[in-house]
Amino acid sequence: MAANTFGEIYRLTSFGESHGVGIGGVIDGCPPGLDINFTFIQLELNRRRPGQSSITTARDEKDEVEFLSGLLNGVTTGTPLAFIVRNLDQKPKDYSHLQDTYRPSHADFTYEAKYGIRDHRGGGRASARETIARVVAGAIAKSYLKQHGISIQAYVSSIGEIEIPKAINIPSFEAVESSLVRCPHPGSSQAMIQLIEEVRKEGDTLGGIINCHITGLKAGLGAPVFDKFHADLAKAVMSINAVKGFEYGSGFDGVKLRGSSHNDKFAVKDGKTVTLTNHSGGIQGGITNGAEVYFRAAFKPVATLMSDQTTVDKFGKTVIIKGKGRHDVCVVPRAVVIVEAMAAIVTMDHFLRQKVYQ
Amino acid sequence: MAANTFGEIYRLTSFGESHGVGIGGVIDGCPPGLDINFTFIQLELNRRRPGQSSITTARDEKDEVEFLSGLLNGVTTGTPLAFIVRNLDQKPKDYSHLQDTYRPSHADFTYEAKYGIRDHRGGGRASARETIARVVAGAIAKSYLKQHGISIQAYVSSIGEIEIPKAINIPSFEAVESSLVRCPHPGSSQAMIQLIEEVRKEGDTLGGIINCHITGLKAGLGAPVFDKFHADLAKAVMSINAVKGFEYGSGFDGVKLRGSSHNDKFAVKDGKTVTLTNHSGGIQGGITNGAEVYFRAAFKPVATLMSDQTTVDKFGKTVIIKGKGRHDVCVVPRAVVIVEAMAAIVTMDHFLRQKVYQ
Amino acid sequence: MAANTFGEIYRLTSFGESHGVGIGGVIDGCPPGLDINFTFIQLELNRRRPGQSSITTARDEKDEVEFLSGLLNGVTTGTPLAFIVRNLDQKPKDYSHLQDTYRPSHADFTYEAKYGIRDHRGGGRASARETIARVVAGAIAKSYLKQHGISIQAYVSSIGEIEIPKAINIPSFEAVESSLVRCPHPGSSQAMIQLIEEVRKEGDTLGGIINCHITGLKAGLGAPVFDKFHADLAKAVMSINAVKGFEYGSGFDGVKLRGSSHNDKFAVKDGKTVTLTNHSGGIQGGITNGAEVYFRAAFKPVATLMSDQTTVDKFGKTVIIKGKGRHDVCVVPRAVVIVEAMAAIVTMDHFLRQKVYQ
Amino acid sequence: MAANTFGEIYRLTSFGESHGVGIGGVIDGCPPGLDINFTFIQLELNRRRPGQSSITTARDEKDEVEFLSGLLNGVTTGTPLAFIVRNLDQKPKDYSHLQDTYRPSHADFTYEAKYGIRDHRGGGRASARETIARVVAGAIAKSYLKQHGISIQAYVSSIGEIEIPKAINIPSFEAVESSLVRCPHPGSSQAMIQLIEEVRKEGDTLGGIINCHITGLKAGLGAPVFDKFHADLAKAVMSINAVKGFEYGSGFDGVKLRGSSHNDKFAVKDGKTVTLTNHSGGIQGGITNGAEVYFRAAFKPVATLMSDQTTVDKFGKTVIIKGKGRHDVCVVPRAVVIVEAMAAIVTMDHFLRQKVYQ
Repeated sequence: MAANTFGEIYRLTSFGESHGVGIGGVIDGCPPGLDINFTFIQLELNRRRPGQSSITTARDEKDEVEFLSGLLNGVTTGTPLAFIVRNLDQKPKDYSHLQDTYRPSHADFTYEAKYGIRDHRGGGRASARETIARVVAGAIAKSYLKQHGISIQAYVSSIGEIEIPKAINIPSFEAVESSLVRCPHPGSSQAMIQLIEEVRKEGDTLGGIINCHITGLKAGLGAPVFDKFHADLAKAVMSINAVKGFEYGSGFDGVKLRGSSHNDKFAVKDGKTVTLTNHSGGIQGGITNGAEVYFRAAFKPVATLMSDQTTVDKFGKTVIIKGKGRHDVCVVPRAVVIVEAMAAIVTMDHFLRQKVYQ
Repeated sequence: MAANTFGEIYRLTSFGESHGVGIGGVIDGCPPGLDINFTFIQLELNRRRPGQSSITTARDEKDEVEFLSGLLNGVTTGTPLAFIVRNLDQKPKDYSHLQDTYRPSHADFTYEAKYGIRDHRGGGRASARETIARVVAGAIAKSYLKQHGISIQAYVSSIGEIEIPKAINIPSFEAVESSLVRCPHPGSSQAMIQLIEEVRKEGDTLGGIINCHITGLKAGLGAPVFDKFHADLAKAVMSINAVKGFEYGSGFDGVKLRGSSHNDKFAVKDGKTVTLTNHSGGIQGGITNGAEVYFRAAFKPVATLMSDQTTVDKFGKTVIIKGKGRHDVCVVPRAVVIVEAMAAIVTMDHFLRQKVYQ
Repeated sequence: MAANTFGEIYRLTSFGESHGVGIGGVIDGCPPGLDINFTFIQLELNRRRPGQSSITTARDEKDEVEFLSGLLNGVTTGTPLAFIVRNLDQKPKDYSHLQDTYRPSHADFTYEAKYGIRDHRGGGRASARETIARVVAGAIAKSYLKQHGISIQAYVSSIGEIEIPKAINIPSFEAVESSLVRCPHPGSSQAMIQLIEEVRKEGDTLGGIINCHITGLKAGLGAPVFDKFHADLAKAVMSINAVKGFEYGSGFDGVKLRGSSHNDKFAVKDGKTVTLTNHSGGIQGGITNGAEVYFRAAFKPVATLMSDQTTVDKFGKTVIIKGKGRHDVCVVPRAVVIVEAMAAIVTMDHFLRQKVYQ
Repeated sequence: MAANTFGEIYRLTSFGESHGVGIGGVIDGCPPGLDINFTFIQLELNRRRPGQSSITTARDEKDEVEFLSGLLNGVTTGTPLAFIVRNLDQKPKDYSHLQDTYRPSHADFTYEAKYGIRDHRGGGRASARETIARVVAGAIAKSYLKQHGISIQAYVSSIGEIEIPKAINIPSFEAVESSLVRCPHPGSSQAMIQLIEEVRKEGDTLGGIINCHITGLKAGLGAPVFDKFHADLAKAVMSINAVKGFEYGSGFDGVKLRGSSHNDKFAVKDGKTVTLTNHSGGIQGGITNGAEVYFRAAFKPVATLMSDQTTVDKFGKTVIIKGKGRHDVCVVPRAVVIVEAMAAIVTMDHFLRQKVYQ
C-alpha cells in the first residue's frame, strides 16, 4: 500500500507539500556507479519551473535540488538517493482564505473527505509542485537510459482546439525547446501562444495534449499480463495532475481501422525482425518489440481561474473565490518534462527488471 | 516484481495458458464471511465466453470454475481463494504450424524476445483466455461491492466507425445484455451487428470502445499521488488484451474546453456536498468525490484474420498464415465483462484500503 | 499486504487447507528455460510426508504434485508455475468435535479472533500441511541453485534434551537421510529414536532444533538495511509452523565472546579474500561474504497430544480433548526439508535480485 | 525489491550514511490526525545517542530531527512524513585510512563485493547510525499504539557472560532507564558496568541480549502463513546491526519441554478466553492471542576494537588497523530503543492491517 512510491526496482518515494519545507523524494534501486549530472537535473527542473517565459506564471521559484544521501563524490553507491527541493517562495498567508473553501475541480473536498484534515496551503500535497520529485528521478533515469542508447522526447501536440498536423516526425529536443509552448510545429506553436494570450485576458484557462516517444528500446521489456509496458506507462502518466486520458500506438483512432490495416506486418531488415508499420506503438502483448514506443496524454484545462467562481465551503455556505497571484493559463508546456520523467522511470524500471532474465 | 499479481489488499494472482491445464488464480485479501455466489460467477464467465451468439465464435468452451481453497460451506474464511477453469477444448495440434511463426500484431515475437522460449499453443499466456481469472475475481468483488451499495456497468459504445449518440444515460444491465453486441442503443446495436456480419465475410476484423460506470461510491476512495483512483483504473484496464487507450471524465475531448466550462461547480444537496456537473468523472486529485466514476477503453481490431497474411518465422523466412478454426471478428462485446471485472477489482481494493483510515 | 506470498522476484503464493481440495501454490518469477525435475520434487515431498518411518505418523498421504501452468514440455516458460497437491485423505468428520473447541497452543482461537470464522477441519490453513507449497517451491529453487553451484543441507541437531556434539562438519545428504530422525550423528540419532518411542508411550510430544548450511554462495547476495540476507532467512524460517527461535553464525552463544575472539579475520587464499573463522555465518552487514551460511531453528514440541487435555470452547465451557487418529510425537525430522525449502527460496530470490546489479 | 523500506501499511523508507548529510526517512501510511510529540521523539533519539553516560562513547552527536513534510501544525495529514537528522559530527578525514581496507566483521568487503563501490566513511550506510531513522518511526508508532493501549518495553538481560535471573517481571521504564546499561536488575546492572569497564581497558568489546515485551495487544493481529506476527518481528529485529539471533515465547529453551508442559491451557477469565501460561509468547499460528508478546534478541560483540587487528586491503595486502577515536565497548544498552522501535513499527503495521477486517 505504497501510495507515494512508484516502481518495482527503480523506486521513487515522493514527499512534500507546496507550502511546507519542500518537495523531495527517495530513489531506491538506482544501480551503483552512475555519475549524477547535477547540471542536467537542474536543466530539467528549469523546464518544469513556472516563470520560464512570458506565457507562464511569473513566480520565480528557484528549484534547486539538494542531495541528502546515496552519493560518493557525485557517483551513486547503490544506497538510497534522497533529495529535496526547498520551497523558497512560501507565503502561507496567501492561502488562508482557502482553509474552509472547496475550490471547484481541485482536490480540497476529496482530501478532506478522505483524511478528515488537509493542508490547504496552495493545494498542499495535491499541488503539481509534487511533480518536482518525479522530474529529479526522471532526470537520473534519463541519464542511465542514455548510456544504454535509449532516449525519450515529449512535446505539446495540442492546446485547446489547436492541433498540430498528424504526420510529424519525432522532433529534436531543440525544436521542442525553441517553442515557448514546446510545440515543434512552428505554425501551431504561434497559434497556441496567441490563444493562451487571449484566454489569459478572459481570466480563463486551457488544456492540451502531450505526445511522447521512447526510442532505442530493445525488444523484451515489459511483463505480460498486469505489468504490461504500456499499462505501467498508463498508470505513471495518469498519475500526473490534470491528466484525463492516455493512449498509445493507434490509440482511440485505431478502433476505426480494420484488422487488415491495423496489423503491423513483420519483415526482416539487416538480420533483425522488424515491423513495417507501427500501429502497435512498439509494444505487443505488453512487451516491447524494438520499435519506437509512443503515446499521448490529455490534460484538462487548469482549474484555478483568474475570474470569480461560485463554490461552497465546508459549512455548506456559498462563497465566491478568485485565483489570486500567479497562475498558469495552460500548464501543458511545463508538463512536457513531467511526462518524459514518468516515461523514463517506467522504462528504467522495466530495463532493470529485464536484467533478471539475462 | 509481481508481474502476475494485481491489487494491494484485494490481490489477484493469475496463472494459466490457453492450451494448458486451465486458467486460474489466487485471490488473497478477500474479507472473511462473504457468501460466494457460484451462479453469479458462472453467469459472468458466460458473458465472457466465446460462442454466446451468432456473431461470436462457435467454440463452445464451457468455462466452469472450480474452487481449490479458501471456502467453508461456500463462505470465505479470510484465507486465499484459489480457483481454476479447466481448458476442455485443448487441441494443441491446431497450433503446431505456429511454433516458429510470428503472427502479426500478436505477442509471439515479443515473448520469444523476452524469455527465449514461448508456449505457441493458441498464444499461451498471451491469449485473452487469461482474462477468465479476472472475471472470477471481478465477480467476487462485484458481490462484495454490491453489499456496500456500489455497482459497475459497462457497455459497448462503438464498433468500427459506428458510435452511439453521446447523450446516453447509464444503461440497465438488461438493456446491455439484450443486445447481441452489448450496446444499449438499439439503432447502433443493429448497425454494429450488420457491420460485424459484413466484415466477417471479408475475413477482416473490428475494434471498438467500451464505456464503464461505477456508481454508489462514497467520497474518499483512492490515494493521492501515484495510486490515484483513475491511475489504478488506467493500469487495470490497459492491462486487458487489445486495449490501446483509456480516458475518464471529460477525457481527450475535455482538452478543448475552457477551464470555466470544465470546472465542476460545487453545491450542497440534501446536506451533502455535490458537483453540478461531472467532467471530473467522479474523481478529484485522484480521490473519489461521491459522484459517478466513468471511463472509456479503446480496443484495437482483432489481430487474427480469416484471410491470408504474409509474415516471417523465427528463421527470417517469409511465410503465409491464415487464421484457422474459430475466431471473433470483434471481441469488444465479450470484453464488457472483463472491463467491469477490472473496475470491480480496483474499486474493491481501494474500498478496503480506505478502511485503514476509518 | 500479501500475507500468503513470499519473495520479491522468486515469489511463492501459497493456498489451501489441510482438509479442503488440496494444498498448492503459484510461483511467479521463475526464470524461463529451467527443466523441472518432477522426480526430485516428489522425493522432496516424500521427505516431508507423514508415514515415512515407524516413528512418524501412520497416515499415508500420497502427496503427488500436479502442475497447472507455466511449463512447455517440462520446461519453465517464464510464466507463473501453478501447482496443487490434492488431499486424498480427507475425512472431515474426524474433526467435527473441534468445531467449537480451542485446542491448546493451536491457532483455533486466534484464527477465530482474527476472522470471526475458521476452517476447523484439521487446523485448516493453520495446518503444517500448508508447507507442501513451500517444499515444491523449494525443490525448484534447489534445482536452479544447483546449476549455479549452490547447495543447501539441513539436519536435526537436537530433539528434546538430546543434542549432537557441537563440532560436526556439514553432513552429506546420505548421512542425514540414513537416520530415521535425520540426525547425522549416529549416537545421537539412536538416542533420539529411543526418546521418541518413550514419549509416544506417554502420549506426550517433543520439540527440537534443525541446523542448516548453505554452501557455494558468492559474495554479494542480500541487501543492506531491512532485507539483510539473514533477516529474510529469519522471516522465512520463523514463518514455518512451530518455530520459536532463529540464530545464524555464532548466534545466542556468540554474545558471550569478546570482540577479539568473535571477529573473523580476513586473509587472502588463492587470490580470494576469505575469513579464517566464520562466526559471521557467512554474512556481514546483511550481505554474503562467500563463506558458508549456517543457521539454526528451534521447534516447540507438537501441540496435539495423544492424552487428555482440558480446554475451553467458544462458549466458554470447559471441555476435554484428546488427539485422535494419527499424530507425530516429533515433527522435527520431517521439518528438515521445509527448512531447506525456505532457505532455498530466500537464496534464489536474492540470487535473482543480485542479477540486477551485474 | 524495496531493500530500504519496511512495513506494508505503516512503511518506513530509510536513507542516509553515517558521514554524509544525515540520516533520514519517509514514513508512508501514518494515519491522519496524529499529534506528533516532538519532545518524545527527541527523548527516544537521546536514548540511542552515543555519549549518554560514562560507559558509552564520548561522541556528543546531537541528534535533532527535522520534519520535511506531512504535518500541519504538528498534526499528521495522511501524507508522507519525511524527516532528517543531520550529521553534525562529520570528520571524513578520520576514515581515509579505511578507504581500501576491509575491517574484520564489518561490511566493508561485502558492500564492495555487492556494489563495486562503497562509502568508506565510518561504515557509510552500514553504520548503526542508520537506526536513527528506525527510532524516529518507532517513536511515532509508540505514540499511536499508546492511544490504543499498547506499550512496548525492552531492556538488557545479558552482557557478555553476565545474565539477569530468569524470573523477572516486565520492568518499568524508570527501572530500565535508571540503569546505565538499561538492565533493571540492580545486581546484574552493577556487574555489567564493571565488566564493561574491565573490557574497555583491554581494548576489547562485548555483546549481549535484549528482552522485549509488548503489552495491551488485542487478539487477532498478525497474518497467518508468511506474515506471522513473530516472523515479521524476527525480520525487523534481525535487520538491526549486530543481531545474530531471535526467539520469542519459550524460544530455544522450549525445545526441551514436553508438549504437555509447553502447551498453554485455555481458561475463561472475566468473560475472556485467556491462557494460563504463556510459552506461546502471546502468539498462536502467527496471530496474537491477547497475552503479552515477548521476545529476545542476541547482539554479537562490537567489531571495532581499540586494539591492533591484522586484516587485508582490497589489493590483498596485509595491514594492521586499530579503532580510532570513540567507540562503544558494548552497544547493547543503546540498542534497547532500537529494538523497541522495530517492535513498534511491526505492531503498528499489523494493527493497521487488521483494520481492514473490522
